Amino acid sequence: MSNTPFKFELLAQDGDARAGVFHTPHGDIPTPIFAPVGTQATVKSLTQQQLQELDAKLILANTYHLYLRPGDDLVAEMGGLHQFMDWNRPILTDSGGFQVFSLSDTRKVDEDGVTFKSHIDGSTHRFTPEHSVQVQENLGADIIMCFDECADPYDPVYNQQSMARTHRWAERCQKAHQRQDQALFGIVQGGVFPRLRAASAEFIASLDFPGNAIGGLSVGETKTEMHAMIEIVNAILPQDKPRYLMGVGTPQDLVNGVQRGIDIFDCVLPTRLARHSTAMTDSGRINLMNAQYARDERPISDTCTCYTCQHHSRAYLRHLIQAREMLSGTLISIHNIHTLLELARKLRQAVFDQNYNAYAAQYLSNFED
Amino acid sequence: MSNTPFKFELLAQDGDARAGVFHTPHGDIPTPIFAPVGTQATVKSLTQQQLQELDAKLILANTYHLYLRPGDDLVAEMGGLHQFMDWNRPILTDSGGFQVFSLSDTRKVDEDGVTFKSHIDGSTHRFTPEHSVQVQENLGADIIMCFDECADPYDPVYNQQSMARTHRWAERCQKAHQRQDQALFGIVQGGVFPRLRAASAEFIASLDFPGNAIGGLSVGETKTEMHAMIEIVNAILPQDKPRYLMGVGTPQDLVNGVQRGIDIFDCVLPTRLARHSTAMTDSGRINLMNAQYARDERPISDTCTCYTCQHHSRAYLRHLIQAREMLSGTLISIHNIHTLLELARKLRQAVFDQNYNAYAAQYLSNFED
Repeated sequence: MSNTPFKFELLAQDGDARAGVFHTPHGDIPTPIFAPVGTQATVKSLTQQQLQELDAKLILANTYHLYLRPGDDLVAEMGGLHQFMDWNRPILTDSGGFQVFSLSDTRKVDEDGVTFKSHIDGSTHRFTPEHSVQVQENLGADIIMCFDECADPYDPVYNQQSMARTHRWAERCQKAHQRQDQALFGIVQGGVFPRLRAASAEFIASLDFPGNAIGGLSVGETKTEMHAMIEIVNAILPQDKPRYLMGVGTPQDLVNGVQRGIDIFDCVLPTRLARHSTAMTDSGRINLMNAQYARDERPISDTCTCYTCQHHSRAYLRHLIQAREMLSGTLISIHNIHTLLELARKLRQAVFDQNYNAYAAQYLSNFED
Repeated sequence: MSNTPFKFELLAQDGDARAGVFHTPHGDIPTPIFAPVGTQATVKSLTQQQLQELDAKLILANTYHLYLRPGDDLVAEMGGLHQFMDWNRPILTDSGGFQVFSLSDTRKVDEDGVTFKSHIDGSTHRFTPEHSVQVQENLGADIIMCFDECADPYDPVYNQQSMARTHRWAERCQKAHQRQDQALFGIVQGGVFPRLRAASAEFIASLDFPGNAIGGLSVGETKTEMHAMIEIVNAILPQDKPRYLMGVGTPQDLVNGVQRGIDIFDCVLPTRLARHSTAMTDSGRINLMNAQYARDERPISDTCTCYTCQHHSRAYLRHLIQAREMLSGTLISIHNIHTLLELARKLRQAVFDQNYNAYAAQYLSNFED
């Protein structure tokens, strides 16, 4: 790995909370970081200029969706995902595994891979670890993920079997992966079972990936279980590699995750909530459709520095929602993504300030739920 | 009118084509100008920042829509339309007349006004000339319009009656209008009938509005008829007041309108076409949904300087359309509005260059239709 363009520098620690930087071919990713999700090579309703103005450093795209439409071969022909969508900063693609298991119409898992039907047109497709890596090489993201299965977190027998297969798939992904300008991350599974999580972390750590992820959380388990699993896994995963908590999420999740040693997060929540009229704030959610905001001249948040809060009132946003105007989704997405990006920046600063636990406790005390 | 903040300066003429500037309380409007339409206090899918980056100088909002939702009283409470939508440049509102006659479920016209049912919830409302002016004073646009009826352009008997009533309504609007920081424009009607158009232009001109509009065109008549009506009317309307051709539109319409002395245009076409995957160019329309663009790495237009053409390929736009991503509407709207704003800027320069007819002929020769 000496010639790799990827390097994780740990700059500060405060308890288990870490501040670092992950160097990639498309620029540096300061950690902790939140990555907005651009499922179909677009963070829904935002231009890439708006994402840059939000200072997003890393975005995620979904392999399952882009494989089906427009096709990874087409993206490769167009110069890869960065050029195709005109985003010159780091991109991460997932392996397609999660969507194959959650979105596709039917699926059949065997030792070699998964056969599934497209949710778009019902056509039959097959993903193997090797194929997932090949598709991700075509897409060309900076960080790519091992093909894994995200199992029902409460089924101990199935998790044992599935985890063992995910481990064999991780070895196959590592073997199949060719591109030196991509970092392949391993994924720890194991449901809510401490013994399985520890075993999975040991195994994935042994493969010496340039970064490691925790999958299969935020899929129905309790927050207590989620935190326990993160603690078990991060006690085992190497300190000198970034740790990515997949598909997570809320402001509280970021605070609790960083406190337990997580560096990277992604979630559709900020854009999905925005399309459902809901703003995320540092003290809870606001549903801007409510009539109480019809004449409310305040911004979503008095202290927020995002474009939406600097320019628009709750009354205007509510009007846009009532009138079913697309701009409401754009403006609330800008606010919600800003909220999570800004929180990650503040958590990073708290690590540098050696003030993390006090900051976290103060921040979490603002939430009622 | 000596204390009025409104003043039209005619800076150059080339034949009947004019270059000028209309001074308003919210800034100067260089003419000829195209005004994007923000029906519900938003130019669909664009932030106000994006409109400013397009250098839109004037936008239109629809009185009918804003009266129904969120209500002109609410807009007034929020500080008026400029503050409500955070747009500090000039705004024009129409009178509601056109929508009352085209959108509402049922309507009954009498000498005093129109009773109609909301297209949103079927509730009954009534607009009179005085009420339209009052609603527009609440909305607070810089340019407001007389309440008029847009009749079937081919019915000579009805046009005669309707026009006479529209004239009486114009006098009532003028009498009702109080705000000195708004310019009330008169509207010429008369269908496709030269005698009626001339009579209407004479009457409206006699009322000495700070600006005049031509209504009832681009509603089904031929281009030849439209051009003939514009010529008849503009030969009568005063030279020293701006002339606004309402609800028009295409690039060719702008070229032909300016050639016949029009200064201001507005149309929903650029944003509506964008939402239907269609890009406007200086040589015709492109439907980006077509499969032929799937691997087309070129921008919509090689010579266009808009954000979309500077950053994105037809292949990416087609992917967004296929994937039903909102961003396609935003990006194509940016391009289409830029196309019309840039065309108006070029037509203005051609007037200064005393080169209008040659420029117009050259421009129009690029279109097949």
